[in-house]
Amino acid sequence: MPDDIVYLDGNSLGPVSASARRRVLEVIDTEWAHGLVGSWNAAGWMAAPTRIGDHLAPLIGARAGEVVVADTLTLALAKLIGGALALLPERHVVLTDVANFHSDLYIVRAMAARAGRDVVVKTIERSSLDAELSADVALVMLTHVDFRTGEMLDMKGITERVHAHGALMLWDFAHSTGAVPLDVSDANVDFAAGCTYKYLNGGPGAPGFMYVRSSWQGVLENPLPGWLGHARPFDFELEYVPASGMQAFVTSSPSMIALAALDGALEVWNRTSIEKARAKSLAMTDLFIDLVEHRLAGVFELVTPREHAKRASQVSLRHTHAYGVVQALIERGVIGDFRDPAIARFGFAPLFLRYVDVYDAVDHLVEVMESEAYLAARFALRNPVT
Amino acid sequence: MPDDIVYLDGNSLGPVSASARRRVLEVIDTEWAHGLVGSWNAAGWMAAPTRIGDHLAPLIGARAGEVVVADTLTLALAKLIGGALALLPERHVVLTDVANFHSDLYIVRAMAARAGRDVVVKTIERSSLDAELSADVALVMLTHVDFRTGEMLDMKGITERVHAHGALMLWDFAHSTGAVPLDVSDANVDFAAGCTYKYLNGGPGAPGFMYVRSSWQGVLENPLPGWLGHARPFDFELEYVPASGMQAFVTSSPSMIALAALDGALEVWNRTSIEKARAKSLAMTDLFIDLVEHRLAGVFELVTPREHAKRASQVSLRHTHAYGVVQALIERGVIGDFRDPAIARFGFAPLFLRYVDVYDAVDHLVEVMESEAYLAARFALRNPVT
Repeated sequence: MPDDIVYLDGNSLGPVSASARRRVLEVIDTEWAHGLVGSWNAAGWMAAPTRIGDHLAPLIGARAGEVVVADTLTLALAKLIGGALALLPERHVVLTDVANFHSDLYIVRAMAARAGRDVVVKTIERSSLDAELSADVALVMLTHVDFRTGEMLDMKGITERVHAHGALMLWDFAHSTGAVPLDVSDANVDFAAGCTYKYLNGGPGAPGFMYVRSSWQGVLENPLPGWLGHARPFDFELEYVPASGMQAFVTSSPSMIALAALDGALEVWNRTSIEKARAKSLAMTDLFIDLVEHRLAGVFELVTPREHAKRASQVSLRHTHAYGVVQALIERGVIGDFRDPAIARFGFAPLFLRYVDVYDAVDHLVEVMESEAYLAARFALRNPVT
Repeated sequence: MPDDIVYLDGNSLGPVSASARRRVLEVIDTEWAHGLVGSWNAAGWMAAPTRIGDHLAPLIGARAGEVVVADTLTLALAKLIGGALALLPERHVVLTDVANFHSDLYIVRAMAARAGRDVVVKTIERSSLDAELSADVALVMLTHVDFRTGEMLDMKGITERVHAHGALMLWDFAHSTGAVPLDVSDANVDFAAGCTYKYLNGGPGAPGFMYVRSSWQGVLENPLPGWLGHARPFDFELEYVPASGMQAFVTSSPSMIALAALDGALEVWNRTSIEKARAKSLAMTDLFIDLVEHRLAGVFELVTPREHAKRASQVSLRHTHAYGVVQALIERGVIGDFRDPAIARFGFAPLFLRYVDVYDAVDHLVEVMESEAYLAARFALRNPVT
């Protein structure tokens, strides 16, 4: 990390690691430069999406063979939604959260429109989920951690209630993976997807991942089939026959250079655990909340739930001039981000942040508020971050 | 290139260049490591898909603003097919070539099945295209250069005949881009897509590109919409409103590391031209054909058309033991590949091959045939290449 900043935006783009950089150079200098086309076999490129998926699987409580890495989060959602809507053709409703990340809403509507039958996407307040569940609901698609508020939902409880109505459950783990322990097996989740550029530090625009519970494999169809997902890709068959397991959800060959960065970034999980990361994350977010409430009593509204079971690794503070607050902090090297409406969002990525960073961030926040620097900064050029 | 090989497989995976490697390291060491999330703006990551598309555009005769780079070739085709089928809802037929790359057949059938109405995909012999064209044809999808035979189709003539029947034309340039000059503007092509890991040397699994003629922009819808293709991505709007131009066809943020390799690989086109590359390519393929016919008269059937206007940068030779021939050559460091049925395929990528490589390759081929080394080699482990 650069010395002069406190980076509270690892929940948007995680930083580079030495192992990520090293793996990229191995792929370029050895596998590509010397192995050339032979590396599809010799260097294991063909199997990279499922091999890296297996490495990632324990972070979400999946078993080997249940995760694949390819394309992007939105395209992973497209495949899962398209596949899921074909499973329960007599049901016509998809439920999703009006507070969901907007891109999830776009893709679920787009795939529903192409389901080949009438499917209505209802974007509801998630508090009304139980009231909306019915025998006509085919699929419920929720994001596990709210990108604005940082609220973490009860994955197991919600999945159970969705299943009780005979519907399928799709979770988006964008803000969960690498931040909190997840157990899709225990929660009996049907499908999940996530990104790898946040807490997994896979790099800008790093590949997405998808999870399909083993009992759905061979049943769920990939609506965007490609040659790398074929059972016999080198037989050049005219008809698509899906490969077994998660390989069927690979479309074309994903970038091996992009996968290499993720592959290297995941090595850190050989030396620590998601449980340790979670413990540090909670200690840091508790500390941040305590310091803000103690030193800036009454200045901010704490939007993120205080209860550990209801939050991940992000703290969101509401303030009329949240945009100016974030800009003034960025000017001081404390990188957080702003989200409508009036939310200053701070991510506490446990793999690289130190406790001293939390104290420093609050020192700066206090100075920004006491000096009213946020008033001038609110006119700063918008600095959009993802 | 490694010293000990003659690489005639640049039509499958092009080699790495110094500039590709350099750009990847710039993105990792400067833009990602130091710029972190701010690089989405400061380093121009948001605009990278269209900026790199603009750099690629002249290679296919497109204008600035007509090409975008993201995802993969198959996903680019999915977007174009899905969008195109919505344009002519009263027509029910898609025509494509039974000799098309198999993955193109899978995705066109998959998208037709999701068109929201009855659409029949007819996979025809391309020689019968004129007979199959009718007022019920919505879309014709052809690959410009046949991946097996190396035959290059008459892009302008076919596009005109397709348009004469009121249908739309989608070209796959997988084996054309970077090998032959293309002029989509002159040919009035509606849509095209291609890959960048072959003659453009963008790296294993490098991003695909898509072309949408400017007159279709704002009309053609992206069936796989995402937040990066939104008109105002940072306003987090609940409804999808497409960005103007090719940005609308970006779904999620593509890997900036993968894009960097392509970005660097394209720099070579600042120092040469596709016309010069074509002249060298034709000289090399002519030389190869002449040498094979002179030194191995009657041994192989030349599958690739001899006429310049009908071939790109690949020469395919038929032989009963083509598989063994390719394997025996690979053992000697001459890397070509095998394609069913009985085709030995040799790519002559003009950017890095030398004329001496052509002579050396034929020397080895002569020795393989005269020694009958191909008979033993035909039992070698299959070495699949893409």
